[in-house]
Amino acid sequence: MTTVKAYASPSSTEDLIPTTIERREVGPHDVLIDIKFAGICHSDIHTVRGDWGPQQYPLVPGHEIAGVVTQVGAKVTRHAVGDRVGVGCMVNSCKECENCLKGEEQYCLKGNVGTYGAVDRDGTITQGGYSTHVVVTEDFVVRIPEGLELDVAAPLLCAGITTFSPLHHWGAGPGKNVAVVGLGGLGHMAVKIAHAMGAEVTVLSQSLKKQEDGLKLGADHYYATSDESTFSDLAGTFDLIINTVSASIDISSYLQLLKLDGALVNVGAPAEPLPVNAFALIGGRRSFAGSMIGGIRETQEMLDFCAQHGIGAEIEVIPAEKINEAYERVLASDVRYRFVIDTATL
Amino acid sequence: MTTVKAYASPSSTEDLIPTTIERREVGPHDVLIDIKFAGICHSDIHTVRGDWGPQQYPLVPGHEIAGVVTQVGAKVTRHAVGDRVGVGCMVNSCKECENCLKGEEQYCLKGNVGTYGAVDRDGTITQGGYSTHVVVTEDFVVRIPEGLELDVAAPLLCAGITTFSPLHHWGAGPGKNVAVVGLGGLGHMAVKIAHAMGAEVTVLSQSLKKQEDGLKLGADHYYATSDESTFSDLAGTFDLIINTVSASIDISSYLQLLKLDGALVNVGAPAEPLPVNAFALIGGRRSFAGSMIGGIRETQEMLDFCAQHGIGAEIEVIPAEKINEAYERVLASDVRYRFVIDTATL
Repeated sequence: MTTVKAYASPSSTEDLIPTTIERREVGPHDVLIDIKFAGICHSDIHTVRGDWGPQQYPLVPGHEIAGVVTQVGAKVTRHAVGDRVGVGCMVNSCKECENCLKGEEQYCLKGNVGTYGAVDRDGTITQGGYSTHVVVTEDFVVRIPEGLELDVAAPLLCAGITTFSPLHHWGAGPGKNVAVVGLGGLGHMAVKIAHAMGAEVTVLSQSLKKQEDGLKLGADHYYATSDESTFSDLAGTFDLIINTVSASIDISSYLQLLKLDGALVNVGAPAEPLPVNAFALIGGRRSFAGSMIGGIRETQEMLDFCAQHGIGAEIEVIPAEKINEAYERVLASDVRYRFVIDTATL
Repeated sequence: MTTVKAYASPSSTEDLIPTTIERREVGPHDVLIDIKFAGICHSDIHTVRGDWGPQQYPLVPGHEIAGVVTQVGAKVTRHAVGDRVGVGCMVNSCKECENCLKGEEQYCLKGNVGTYGAVDRDGTITQGGYSTHVVVTEDFVVRIPEGLELDVAAPLLCAGITTFSPLHHWGAGPGKNVAVVGLGGLGHMAVKIAHAMGAEVTVLSQSLKKQEDGLKLGADHYYATSDESTFSDLAGTFDLIINTVSASIDISSYLQLLKLDGALVNVGAPAEPLPVNAFALIGGRRSFAGSMIGGIRETQEMLDFCAQHGIGAEIEVIPAEKINEAYERVLASDVRYRFVIDTATL
């Protein structure tokens, strides 16, 4: 066991505070990572505040981790000391169910092991990336290619793969008309990636406030969904809509924006069920679907793709002491587009 | 114009009565069909009773038409006098939009022309198959292959294609686990077709009342959805679920029965929006989708497939004077599994 510095949430109602935690000894298949940067994801806030169920505290959040390997176990073959690596939303899975065998560990039938707040295979509770070091089994560690800076790479491990995976799965590319609902942490990555894939990209945002940004990030078009005419003007236009908004939106109205065989894919989920008009589905063989992060192989593909296209997240690097302030700003949508903690300040 | 016998609904509240209607002259691209049999579809009842919006009366329903060609226009190339043919839910479309060009006329962007109660391209209101004759443009007439009797073929033109199309589109076949929700007019065709495609077929019905039938029709398994354990026993089991029930069912519970990348496809639609838990979609990259009849080319494929596999509908042939009684029995689910009108009795 090694004692390392971290920022933890002491309870669902208190601010995060500096602390120390124990990391396990580096096992034969483990990698010890010196964390350089950790992104702040909206999920971190939901989790530590208990919005998604009760947690064990103190809890160290963070699943957008970028760092450098400083030690490897005897049997590690995929990574070496000095490698620039990342860890995303999961640190283990059963590796033997049909979904794991397909490389879709995020859908592990026994449940993947989340990077924080989850029961690890050894019974301990996982602790996340707001920390100076982490020990992870090598299969759940991905390589950050040269040319991709660690700070802008960190958010790719969640926001990047969460949008890359459905864009890739549903065939975004040349000749495809893709809409991205919401221009936040996930949305801005969806725009960059869909644009790099060669799709025609439209942002559907509540207002035109971020229009200039959206176009700079790679969007071809930008519409305000508060303007009713958006829904009539764009009816039957898109092959794919990626909905990055977790709040309830009127799914049936968005379904009408899809072409024949189009899909509306949610990457977030509101707590309440969403009412769906089945006629909107039947009238164009449309689908309302969902997607959750991506598998490890696909996460590596995403990082390689981003490096090749010069894509990183748009970030604001903060020292650890600003984490609580950053949380408030995320909740107020006052971030363009991701906070990243410089773990040297922990 | 030719005057022909028919059964028509005089208003949304009255019984259907015998009458005569006018059929247009046979144009250069038209086919005159001597109708032998016409199926009774639940949609007929919804439409004449105004459940789906106001209609012009008198209205002759019927969009499951099987008969014989008795006259062809000068430019007709696809059909000849004496051919055994069918007409389904549509009799025209724009033929030039991107969906029509793909052979998906049912999703015509200008709206396909329904077989009854629709405004035809010439401004007249279409009248359906509860009639001795009908004139239809040759492109919307399909061939009924030898070996398929006209009476059991009639329901294939709606119930058959409505289920064949999604089974085909979503890849039902060997190695696929397909569930059919509801064992009525559509459901019984879905079971027969999915079984013939080589899929493993499970019926999900409210009770076990029709279990024996279901297994005879080709189902491998039969479960009652009134039994709560069905949903835990079958969690994560199916690649595809075809929902033939128009009433509101708990979509989120059924979504949980799907494997990774599985799809739940509605072929009917309740008037009220269906609440969908987005977590059920996201947790397995599942889709909730819809499908509407099928294109003309696919309808021909379906008929050829059914002839090849000896598949017809399970029917009860009735004389015209029993139409109103049959409507009541359809509404009471007292039919196994389709009423077919012998038009010689009109």
